[in-house]
Amino acid sequence: MPADTNHRIVMASRPTAYPEPRHFRLEEAPAPKPAEGEALVQVEWLSLDPYMRGRMREGPSYATPVQEGEVMTGGVVGHVVESRTPELDVGDIVDGSLGWQEYAVARPGQLRKVDPGLAPISTAVGVLGMPGMTAYFGLLDVGQPEVGDTLVVSAASGAVGQVVGQIGKIMGCRVVGTAGSDDKVDFIVNELGFDAGINYKTQDVPSALAEACPDGIDVYFDNVGGPVTDAVLQLINVHARISVCGQISQYNLPEPELAPRQMGILIQKQAKMEGFLVFNFAHKHEHARQRMAEWIRTGQLKYREDVVEGLENAPGAFIGMMSGENFGKLLVHVRNY
Amino acid sequence: MPADTNHRIVMASRPTAYPEPRHFRLEEAPAPKPAEGEALVQVEWLSLDPYMRGRMREGPSYATPVQEGEVMTGGVVGHVVESRTPELDVGDIVDGSLGWQEYAVARPGQLRKVDPGLAPISTAVGVLGMPGMTAYFGLLDVGQPEVGDTLVVSAASGAVGQVVGQIGKIMGCRVVGTAGSDDKVDFIVNELGFDAGINYKTQDVPSALAEACPDGIDVYFDNVGGPVTDAVLQLINVHARISVCGQISQYNLPEPELAPRQMGILIQKQAKMEGFLVFNFAHKHEHARQRMAEWIRTGQLKYREDVVEGLENAPGAFIGMMSGENFGKLLVHVRNY
Repeated sequence: MPADTNHRIVMASRPTAYPEPRHFRLEEAPAPKPAEGEALVQVEWLSLDPYMRGRMREGPSYATPVQEGEVMTGGVVGHVVESRTPELDVGDIVDGSLGWQEYAVARPGQLRKVDPGLAPISTAVGVLGMPGMTAYFGLLDVGQPEVGDTLVVSAASGAVGQVVGQIGKIMGCRVVGTAGSDDKVDFIVNELGFDAGINYKTQDVPSALAEACPDGIDVYFDNVGGPVTDAVLQLINVHARISVCGQISQYNLPEPELAPRQMGILIQKQAKMEGFLVFNFAHKHEHARQRMAEWIRTGQLKYREDVVEGLENAPGAFIGMMSGENFGKLLVHVRNY
Repeated sequence: MPADTNHRIVMASRPTAYPEPRHFRLEEAPAPKPAEGEALVQVEWLSLDPYMRGRMREGPSYATPVQEGEVMTGGVVGHVVESRTPELDVGDIVDGSLGWQEYAVARPGQLRKVDPGLAPISTAVGVLGMPGMTAYFGLLDVGQPEVGDTLVVSAASGAVGQVVGQIGKIMGCRVVGTAGSDDKVDFIVNELGFDAGINYKTQDVPSALAEACPDGIDVYFDNVGGPVTDAVLQLINVHARISVCGQISQYNLPEPELAPRQMGILIQKQAKMEGFLVFNFAHKHEHARQRMAEWIRTGQLKYREDVVEGLENAPGAFIGMMSGENFGKLLVHVRNY
């Protein structure tokens, strides 16, 4: 039986720079009741992702922003605990964008059934979910790596970066990652098999990159933007592809950062820089998911999760992620089954 | 009979900002003699193009820089006046990259025979030459316009821009150009049939663009970079294509210009920004040339040349082009036939 009470986290006010605890509020409310055609989902895993910072911003983007007092946007994995639709049964495991809360009602079209035989169900918002799909299509469809290419990925130990680098290795690339601690660099090189790693907080990135990429850079998968990206662009080869996935270094700046203009490099190198959203490839997600699940089974694709216990700790974990405190895919374990 | 004397313009010293007359030197030298397998070409038309500023810069680029004391790089149209190769006859009209001079020797592989029946031969370095090919492939292959798209082109009355805009109209786009004088704006709108034009020197570009592009911008063909490009990026639509051809606003800056970072817009709009060189499409030039010659015959494609008489006036004309003083494709008439 579902509880009568729902706990949820709303955006209390809009941050203009780094988010702080005061921008979030934990609320108690009656648990929602499913109407005809809906199901009630009890959330087990909440995914915390950098894109959520964009939803806290006012103004037009590719998605509607969260308003003050509204539940924070977020992908979850949960269990159907009550169903008023023939398409879903109690006990089904589903994922969907149900927000930072314990319970939510949804129509079947808003949910995807998760196959628990594929991998642990938390992966439905991780390596086999949005971040994994982002890595897969952003690398393969946008970055178009070829055997022997040098691939650089930033935020390389993160939810997306760790997958990008490993798929790069599967595709026969030399893979170099940047990350924010020696432990993370050690992880991507010694656990995940990257060819080299750079700690962008302690190393001189331009010279470390030049050393790690003696043949230049053919594909860059960018999660961070900023000075790391500036350094990468100085080393790109002719016909390089830059897959622009995220710019986390810029998300919390109250004013846009000024930097040297970069478009001249694109001409000189006849290079392509392309932004994308994972939703652009929705029609191909299922194929990628099956392929990646197979790589997980064969041990070619590993993943590291960073699990925080308790919904009440979501804001702190999210704030920490904005400065790279997480190590791997950041998840909130909302309720222990 | 060719003259015994060759006049040529060499780079006297390397500019670090805007080029000045002192960076060039007119020299007199003996006319070169063709060796076995070569022909002697007498230059009639010298093309002046923004890319030449890049050749005056030291350091690696996609092409070898001019050294101090060397003849300036430049495409020409000329006449074979002496031939020691069966592949070329006296009287043949050819184009090639023979530099800023009256006479040059070349092997057949360095030259292309020009068909004077196609259009006036000066077009071999203009609308039917490098600038025309740049426009054609940079728009069609890189920008990929579709019927009904809004296309913006910067430096719209220039050698490349004027062709881009007209091909855009042929392809069924709404075409908006930016240029640096009211006369140029009048020309692109009233002579070439652009839908709107903006004088970037006197108008507020962001608001003028917003007014001229009520449905946003789908394709941007960029010749200039800088603040015009910043304004365009604020208006791009989802899946916009930015074809990066030139960045003339940046070529003469002693230090790179700082500007707000732009990569976040690419993600939000899932947009592509791609640099290219006309040589990337060399295998398809001939097809494009025939197609464009037909458009010229039918009156769908017009071109405006800005002709300067005399090789000695090439440096001044080139310097003027760097600040937009030319009006149309800039050519030097080296010798009157």
